[in-house]
Amino acid sequence: MIHVSRKYRFSASHRLHSEQLSESENQHIYGKCNYPFGHGHNYELEVGVKGPVEAKSGRAIDTTALDLLVSTEILEAFAYKNLNAEISEFRNVVPTTENLGIEIHRRLNSKWRDVFPGQWPALDKVRIAETSRNIFEVSENGQK
Amino acid sequence: MIHVSRKYRFSASHRLHSEQLSESENQHIYGKCNYPFGHGHNYELEVGVKGPVEAKSGRAIDTTALDLLVSTEILEAFAYKNLNAEISEFRNVVPTTENLGIEIHRRLNSKWRDVFPGQWPALDKVRIAETSRNIFEVSENGQK
Amino acid sequence: MIHVSRKYRFSASHRLHSEQLSESENQHIYGKCNYPFGHGHNYELEVGVKGPVEAKSGRAIDTTALDLLVSTEILEAFAYKNLNAEISEFRNVVPTTENLGIEIHRRLNSKWRDVFPGQWPALDKVRIAETSRNIFEVSENGQK
Amino acid sequence: MIHVSRKYRFSASHRLHSEQLSESENQHIYGKCNYPFGHGHNYELEVGVKGPVEAKSGRAIDTTALDLLVSTEILEAFAYKNLNAEISEFRNVVPTTENLGIEIHRRLNSKWRDVFPGQWPALDKVRIAETSRNIFEVSENGQK
Amino acid sequence: MIHVSRKYRFSASHRLHSEQLSESENQHIYGKCNYPFGHGHNYELEVGVKGPVEAKSGRAIDTTALDLLVSTEILEAFAYKNLNAEISEFRNVVPTTENLGIEIHRRLNSKWRDVFPGQWPALDKVRIAETSRNIFEVSENGQK
Amino acid sequence: MIHVSRKYRFSASHRLHSEQLSESENQHIYGKCNYPFGHGHNYELEVGVKGPVEAKSGRAIDTTALDLLVSTEILEAFAYKNLNAEISEFRNVVPTTENLGIEIHRRLNSKWRDVFPGQWPALDKVRIAETSRNIFEVSENGQK
Repeated sequence: MIHVSRKYRFSASHRLHSEQLSESENQHIYGKCNYPFGHGHNYELEVGVKGPVEAKSGRAIDTTALDLLVSTEILEAFAYKNLNAEISEFRNVVPTTENLGIEIHRRLNSKWRDVFPGQWPALDKVRIAETSRNIFEVSENGQK
Repeated sequence: MIHVSRKYRFSASHRLHSEQLSESENQHIYGKCNYPFGHGHNYELEVGVKGPVEAKSGRAIDTTALDLLVSTEILEAFAYKNLNAEISEFRNVVPTTENLGIEIHRRLNSKWRDVFPGQWPALDKVRIAETSRNIFEVSENGQK
Repeated sequence: MIHVSRKYRFSASHRLHSEQLSESENQHIYGKCNYPFGHGHNYELEVGVKGPVEAKSGRAIDTTALDLLVSTEILEAFAYKNLNAEISEFRNVVPTTENLGIEIHRRLNSKWRDVFPGQWPALDKVRIAETSRNIFEVSENGQK
Repeated sequence: MIHVSRKYRFSASHRLHSEQLSESENQHIYGKCNYPFGHGHNYELEVGVKGPVEAKSGRAIDTTALDLLVSTEILEAFAYKNLNAEISEFRNVVPTTENLGIEIHRRLNSKWRDVFPGQWPALDKVRIAETSRNIFEVSENGQK
Repeated sequence: MIHVSRKYRFSASHRLHSEQLSESENQHIYGKCNYPFGHGHNYELEVGVKGPVEAKSGRAIDTTALDLLVSTEILEAFAYKNLNAEISEFRNVVPTTENLGIEIHRRLNSKWRDVFPGQWPALDKVRIAETSRNIFEVSENGQK
Repeated sequence: MIHVSRKYRFSASHRLHSEQLSESENQHIYGKCNYPFGHGHNYELEVGVKGPVEAKSGRAIDTTALDLLVSTEILEAFAYKNLNAEISEFRNVVPTTENLGIEIHRRLNSKWRDVFPGQWPALDKVRIAETSRNIFEVSENGQK
């Protein structure tokens, strides 16, 4: 059993503002991230998988297939986009990086068995850094 | 004579689109950076100064004064902002990182002598990284 | 359930020397870190927390509150200090980065419920890098 | 109980090609990594250990002993080498970074008790980055 | 006038050995880099250009054209290759990173005017890092 | 003509305090860096040299000789030391990183011709980072 991580980067913009909070609550909770016109980040995404190493190829995952999955399901959808305006899931959900990580995990997970039909490799975690000092991680097993 | 560099970080959003170009030229020149709703970056700004080292303090620049200058003139103005919508200089100028670097240099330069009235320290260069692989540098002497 | 990490930096000095070891043992165990006048590091501290994402704010932790806690309990105490001379806990305990990590974890833990009174977010781990190649991690559950 | 990680770097070359696969399978699975003359990497190795902190020294591991072990068993063997041609274990096993991590783990594990005869410190994991975006981790307990 | 740098990465292998030196000179000068089977690196290439910013586009260089030039002339030629065996220029020239930088500069320079026919942007420098601590830079003007 | 940079790391401690300044001036100018017991850093030193590439070896500098020079003249002297207490040049000179860079440059320069007796390679610059956001550079030609 081995863990493999692969990193991807994309740039997007967002504004942190909740319709369920008052104006002053929004300003208090999100600070400058609540500024009305939004801002953006260079997100660094790390997709972690695990599985046994296949004897004849010496690989735990077909990285070409993983790259294609991440490219079509994640990068095409989020790169160079305004998360609030262009991602339907963030119409009523604040696009914090917590929620962005959860949404990326959900999208990868929903297509995972189409691409990797066997027991292994399994999607282990999604890790996303908003900046180099703010990092969010969603594990496969939410109870961990 | 010594060179001192000091780094700052801020996040902002922009859209690359020129009113002086046709729709297809915009798409060709800017690619995905032309997407209509914009995107953003974690910009890394490096301010380079030069000057002699003062004998009694052993310093080439009062870094507290430099930090205050960068904070009030640059970070307050650009951090968490949408460059197209909120920075007046980018109403008719495309907020490419080339132009952002030039604008940051212009702003620092215009206040420099108020903060550092003597010959030294001099503003040497402004360097700004849009992502870790795209870096832009504006030198004091545009002829270099 | 999501994991959130937030990074902080501070500089301090220390000397590795144990009163419970002979001079030659000290030199053997600590090498150059035992030099009598001490040296220092740019420590990078990572505080890891975990908890569910609150629906209305989309956040797992109030980062303003976390920053304030780390600032008052850790950075004010350790930044720009000599750990041996100025931190009472290191009067009889060698300020190795193992012990520094444990002490930071103890301090955060002792104030955690004052700041975050509910079950979540929980302090998950304290990770501290002495240099980019020496990293120490203290988990909430010491048995892991 | 504390976790300690220590990083090492070495450069080596390899070619990904399996005798158990056809020419077209090799090209499909390994892509440019299958080019006949091989290529190389600056590998970054992280050795993770865990154990309690010894009261009198404040350390969880004798890092001099760990460095010596890694140097003699790993760096001497792999640094500046062609993994396919010079490492006997890779004569019939493809030197993917998955297998390189497993082999490094096996070599450290087989000498561990000679160097660290007690229950602690224990070898916890071997983490190896082939490039900054491709990372592989072998845990002590393969079932994790 | 602005300076723009753009970074690219590629992996390759090489052996440092000169036919014009004796066996013991080779071992003395190149050390472990002279090992007979070669080793490799993750090279980081930085291409630096300079020029004025075009008013209507706000850009100093067409980065799509630059990426295409670097991809076809450099990455296609060097990535995943053995520099000694597969690059004709290194048949009689030792593929040190000094010579690799000079060769990359020569190749970019020889095609530059085909891609960028005007006075600007000009190729300013080629910078190549063999590892994070060994960096080589070739300037347009060799006399600098 | 090529530029070669080589990086080295060392940890040391210092206190910024000038005997030529009053107590309140010291506190104002140096802030927390003036705290009485001192603090420390992981300094990153970059030594830049320039020269032509020797045809038969393909090298611009004998890096083994450079490493030995830096090791004996700089690392032995400064690593794991308290700069104020143990470096005679800092008895009456404040060990700011400006002055540390100048002193390192002076020491390398004074032994340079013993190690590299010809015209080339020449010492081009000394660059020292106190933290990742504070960088100081001393050029060979102080007038630049």
